[in-house]
Amino acid sequence: MAERLFPGGTSTVVLCSGNPSQAGAVQLGQALATKMSGVLLLTENSQHIGAETLQALSDMTVPQVAPTGTIQPFQPQPGKPTVYIVGDDSAISVKIQDRLTQMGYQVTRISGSAHEIRTQILNIVAPAIPQGLDASSFPSSWTMNEGASNHESFFPVSSTAPAWMKQGVSWNFAEQAAVPLNASFPDLANLGPRNAPVKLTQYLGNALGVTAVNGVIYAESDDYHLYALNAQTGALIWQVGPLNNSLMGDPIVSGNVVYVTTGDTGFSFSQVLKYQLCGGTALLVRGLLYSSLYAFNATTGIMLWRQDFRGNAMPTPILYNNTVYEPTGGGNLWALNAQSGALVWKTALGGFDSMSSPNLYVNPSTKQAPIILGTSDANHVVAVNAVTGAIEWVQPTTLNIFNTGMGDNSPAVDQANGVVIKDSVVNFDMANKTTDLAVYAMNADTGNILWSTDLGRGSAPPAYKSGMALIQNGVVYVGSPVTSMLYALDEFTGKILWTFSFANSGPAGAGRGNAVLAYGVLWIAAGPTIYAVNPTNGQELGTYTPGGRFGIVNPVIVGGTMYLGNSYDWIQAIPLSKIYPGVNLS
Amino acid sequence: MAERLFPGGTSTVVLCSGNPSQAGAVQLGQALATKMSGVLLLTENSQHIGAETLQALSDMTVPQVAPTGTIQPFQPQPGKPTVYIVGDDSAISVKIQDRLTQMGYQVTRISGSAHEIRTQILNIVAPAIPQGLDASSFPSSWTMNEGASNHESFFPVSSTAPAWMKQGVSWNFAEQAAVPLNASFPDLANLGPRNAPVKLTQYLGNALGVTAVNGVIYAESDDYHLYALNAQTGALIWQVGPLNNSLMGDPIVSGNVVYVTTGDTGFSFSQVLKYQLCGGTALLVRGLLYSSLYAFNATTGIMLWRQDFRGNAMPTPILYNNTVYEPTGGGNLWALNAQSGALVWKTALGGFDSMSSPNLYVNPSTKQAPIILGTSDANHVVAVNAVTGAIEWVQPTTLNIFNTGMGDNSPAVDQANGVVIKDSVVNFDMANKTTDLAVYAMNADTGNILWSTDLGRGSAPPAYKSGMALIQNGVVYVGSPVTSMLYALDEFTGKILWTFSFANSGPAGAGRGNAVLAYGVLWIAAGPTIYAVNPTNGQELGTYTPGGRFGIVNPVIVGGTMYLGNSYDWIQAIPLSKIYPGVNLS
Repeated sequence: MAERLFPGGTSTVVLCSGNPSQAGAVQLGQALATKMSGVLLLTENSQHIGAETLQALSDMTVPQVAPTGTIQPFQPQPGKPTVYIVGDDSAISVKIQDRLTQMGYQVTRISGSAHEIRTQILNIVAPAIPQGLDASSFPSSWTMNEGASNHESFFPVSSTAPAWMKQGVSWNFAEQAAVPLNASFPDLANLGPRNAPVKLTQYLGNALGVTAVNGVIYAESDDYHLYALNAQTGALIWQVGPLNNSLMGDPIVSGNVVYVTTGDTGFSFSQVLKYQLCGGTALLVRGLLYSSLYAFNATTGIMLWRQDFRGNAMPTPILYNNTVYEPTGGGNLWALNAQSGALVWKTALGGFDSMSSPNLYVNPSTKQAPIILGTSDANHVVAVNAVTGAIEWVQPTTLNIFNTGMGDNSPAVDQANGVVIKDSVVNFDMANKTTDLAVYAMNADTGNILWSTDLGRGSAPPAYKSGMALIQNGVVYVGSPVTSMLYALDEFTGKILWTFSFANSGPAGAGRGNAVLAYGVLWIAAGPTIYAVNPTNGQELGTYTPGGRFGIVNPVIVGGTMYLGNSYDWIQAIPLSKIYPGVNLS
Repeated sequence: MAERLFPGGTSTVVLCSGNPSQAGAVQLGQALATKMSGVLLLTENSQHIGAETLQALSDMTVPQVAPTGTIQPFQPQPGKPTVYIVGDDSAISVKIQDRLTQMGYQVTRISGSAHEIRTQILNIVAPAIPQGLDASSFPSSWTMNEGASNHESFFPVSSTAPAWMKQGVSWNFAEQAAVPLNASFPDLANLGPRNAPVKLTQYLGNALGVTAVNGVIYAESDDYHLYALNAQTGALIWQVGPLNNSLMGDPIVSGNVVYVTTGDTGFSFSQVLKYQLCGGTALLVRGLLYSSLYAFNATTGIMLWRQDFRGNAMPTPILYNNTVYEPTGGGNLWALNAQSGALVWKTALGGFDSMSSPNLYVNPSTKQAPIILGTSDANHVVAVNAVTGAIEWVQPTTLNIFNTGMGDNSPAVDQANGVVIKDSVVNFDMANKTTDLAVYAMNADTGNILWSTDLGRGSAPPAYKSGMALIQNGVVYVGSPVTSMLYALDEFTGKILWTFSFANSGPAGAGRGNAVLAYGVLWIAAGPTIYAVNPTNGQELGTYTPGGRFGIVNPVIVGGTMYLGNSYDWIQAIPLSKIYPGVNLS
C-alpha cells in the first residue's frame, strides 16, 4: 500500500525485517519513517527482500516532472529513495543490502544491540535536551530580535567550557521543506531573475535568524514550523507545526517559554483599491492568512497559549518586564502578559508594521523604556511607552522614504548613548526601478534625527529591502542590498569609514542581514557566502560558502561556532575557523 | 519518544501489541498512524498496556491553548486522542480496552483474521479504485469548470446502475486540515464578524467544487492537497501534497490524467504602491507564492509534469482539443499541450485573472471556439481564439464594475443559443461599503451585451464576491451574496422571474455557488445549508444542514447522490432524499 500513501514517491524508505522477533525494531523504524516523512517496508525474511516489497520500493522512486533545476518547497527531489536498514545481518542479510546498493540505492544500516539500535534512532528522531555543564556557557534567555539592543549576537564561552563549544562544531539540519543546498532558483524562465530568488527565499527557509539558549538552537521557518535542535550535534529535540502561517523571526526564549509569531506578506485586492482611491492615505492591513503569537514550553515544545491578531505578525516580539510586545500588519502594537497571553493594552501605530521587529531603550534616569519600531505606511519610526501604551514620539524622518521603508527594517539601539539606528530604502524611482538606501541616527528619548547618510543608489532589491545595523564601539555596521555593499559609519557623525563589496550578490542584491563582531572580526552572511572582515578597515579576512543562500539572517556566534538559518530551509553550525582560519578564539 | 515527535499531542493513537507475533499488525498499524498523522504505541503484553505506553498515551492529549471556539487549520482539537486497537482480545485484551474507555478515550478495535485486519485498514488507508460496472454510469471525463458550459453538473444514471448509485450514498471525508463540522469561526473577537469567516473559508476547504469521473471523486483543497476518493464509500484512493500553493478549482480529468492548478490571492506591497502612483492604470500581478499547473495519473496519483507561472493560477483550467488553457494572476492565458505541458502559446489579457475559470463557445458554423474569461483589473470579459491565441473580442461591460469584478466570476455559456452569462459586483460605495450585483448576457461571437440586470444592493461581501450562473431551459439561475438571494432570470430578456432568500447567510453573505437542476428540482448550497427549490416559482421544497459552511461550491449530482466540498475542508456525499424527501429519482 506504500504507493497509495506516497503516489509521488518518497525520499526515505525504512526497511525492517518481517520476522516476528523484530517487532521492536519495527516500532523504532516507524518512528524513523514518520520523522523522515517516509515509508516503512518489511522484508520477506532475512535472505529475501520479497517481490512485493521490491515492487513497493521501486514505486517509491520520485519521478522527474519538471525541468532540471526548478526546485520548490515540499517537492521531493527526483530519484531513488535513501534506504535505512534497521537490524543486523541476521535480521536483514548483507546479501539484501548489497543487492540494493547494486540497484543504485543509497543504503544506511542501523544495527547493533536492541539498545544500540534504539539509541541511534532516538538520536535521529528525538534526542535528549543537552543537560548540565555543556550548556552553561550559552545565553540563558533571548528577549529580543538578534539577542541584544545593539544587534550583537556574540556569546563568548568561559575557559572551562567543553572543547566542542570553544573550538566550534559543524552540522547541517534540514527543516521540513528543505531544498538541496546546491539547488538553483525555481523556474528562472517563467519568473525572471528578480522574481525567482524571491520565491525561493521568501516562502521557504529562515527569514531572520536563530536563537541560542541553554545549549538549544531554536529556529523559525517559513514552512510553518518551529524547531529546537541540540547545539552540539544538530539533532532534533522537538519540532512543532504546521502552525497557522509562516514564522519569520527569532524565537524569544525566557523562563522555559518560547514565543514565536506567524504572518505573511500579502495584501487583499480591496486594500489595493482602497489605497489607490484614497490617494495613498488609507490605512493598510498587511497579511491575508492567520497570524498569532504562540507560547511553547521550551523543553518539550508543548503549546501553552496562543493570541490571534488581525494583520500579519511577522516581526520578532520583544519581552520586557513580564510583557510580550508584538506590532502587526493590522497597525497595532499589542502588549500581552508573558505568562497568560492576556491583553494588557493595544495601541494604534498610525501605520502597519511589516517586518520591523521592536527594540527598546531604557532611559537610565527616568527608567522609562519606549518600545521602538518602524511602520511601512506611513513610513514612520514610532516609540511607545512600554507601561502605558502611550505614543512617546513619532519620527517621519526625511529623504523621501518609499517602498517597504521603515516598516521592513528593525531598529538597533545603543543603550549607553541613547542612539537609535535605522535604515530604509528611499528615493525610489519607479521608471527605472532604482533606489537609495539611507541610514538614520535618532535620539532615543525624542526621536530627533542626529544625522542621516545616503549610502548610494542601485537597483531596487525585490522583497526584504533593507539591511540591518550593528552598533559596536562607536561604529555602525550596515549592509545595503541596493549596492550589495557593507558599510562602516561613525555612530555620532554618520561619516562613512569604509566599504566592502559582496561578491556574487545575485539579481536580488545582498547585504540584508547584519554583521556580528566577535574575536575582533566582523562576520556577515550575504548572498551565498559568509565573510570575515577586518572591522577597522573593511579588508576581507576569509570567506566560506556553505551552500544555500542568505537573506536577512543574522549569524549567532557562541564560542567557536556560528549558528544560522538559510533561505533554503536549513539550519547550519559552522566553526569560525572554517570561515577564517586565522581567527584567534582565545 | 512519541511526545518528542508530537509535542502538541495528536488526534490519533494506534495501539498494537508488543508481542513479536504481531509484527504484521504493527506494519498495518504504522500505515494507519501515518495516514492519520498519528502515533503508533505498543502494549507491554496482551494484559498490560505498560506504564511507559500509558504515559506516552497521556502525553498525546492535545492541550487547550486558545479560547474555546477559535478554530484554525492544522491545529488539532483539544482533548484526548482517539485510540485504534489493532488485533483481537488475545493480542490486546478487553481489559485494556475497557480501562482505556473508563479513562475517557474513544476506542475503536480493528480485529479479525490477519486478512480481515489488513482489509479493514486498507479500506481506511488506501482502498482500491472502483472497477467496472459500478462506475460506468459516471461521467468519463471532466473538461471544464463545473463539468459543462452551462454549469450544469447533473449526471443521471441508467436504470441498470447499482442501487447505491440510484438511491444515493452518505459519507463525510475529512481532508488534511479539516476542522470539525460543528466548529465556529476563528477568533471573532480579534478578526471581527466579516473577517473571521473569510479566514476560515478562504484558507481552508474546497473553494469551488469537486469532480466526479469513473466512480472517483476528485477534490482540491486550499490545504495544498489533491484527493481521489471512492464515490461509493468516501474512502481515500490516493492523495498528493503538499503541492506548492492552494488548490481552488475543479480538477480536470481526461484520458486518465488529472489537471489541477495552484495559486493564492495576495498582492505585494510594490504592487499596491505602483497601482496607487499610476492612478489605477498599472497592470497588477495577483499571487505571491508559487503557482503551477500539475498533471497527475488519475489512477495512481503519480505526478506526470508541472508547468510554473508568474502570478496565481487559481482558476480551473479548461481542456479542449488536446490543449489545456489556464489564465493567471500574471495577466496571461497559457495554452499547454495536454500530454507534455509544453507551451503552445501565451496571450496577454490586458488584465489579471483572479478566479474566473475559462469557458468556451464552439460556433456551430465556423467551428471557432473562443476561450472566454474575465479579468479583475481591467474589469473586462475577454474571448481568445483557442487555436491561435489571438484576442477575438473584449467587452468592458457597463454599470461601473468594481472590486473583484469580472475576474472573480466564471462565465456560463449556452452553446445552443450562443449566449454568455456573467455577473459582477458593481457600483461599490466605499463610504458605506455597499455594492450591487449585476448579471450580463453577451453574444458569444462578438461579446456584444444582450441585456444586463441589476440584482440589487447590499453590504459588499468580503472575498469571493460573486455568484455563478446556471443556464437551463431558457432560465438563468444565479445567487447574489450581496443580497443573499437566489434569482431566476429570463435568459433572453434578463427579466427577474422569481427570487428566493437564503436563511442564516451570515455576515459574509451567501449565494456564491451555483445551482444544479436535477429531477425537476433546483439544488443549491449557500451558507450552512443545502436547499431544494422549485425551479418554476422559487418555492422551498426542502433543506439540509450537513455541518460546515459553503462558499462558491457547486454541488455535483450523480444519480441519487450530491457530492460537494465545503469550506471546512471536508468532502461530503449526501443522498438527495435527505435534502428533499419528496424527490422523484426515477
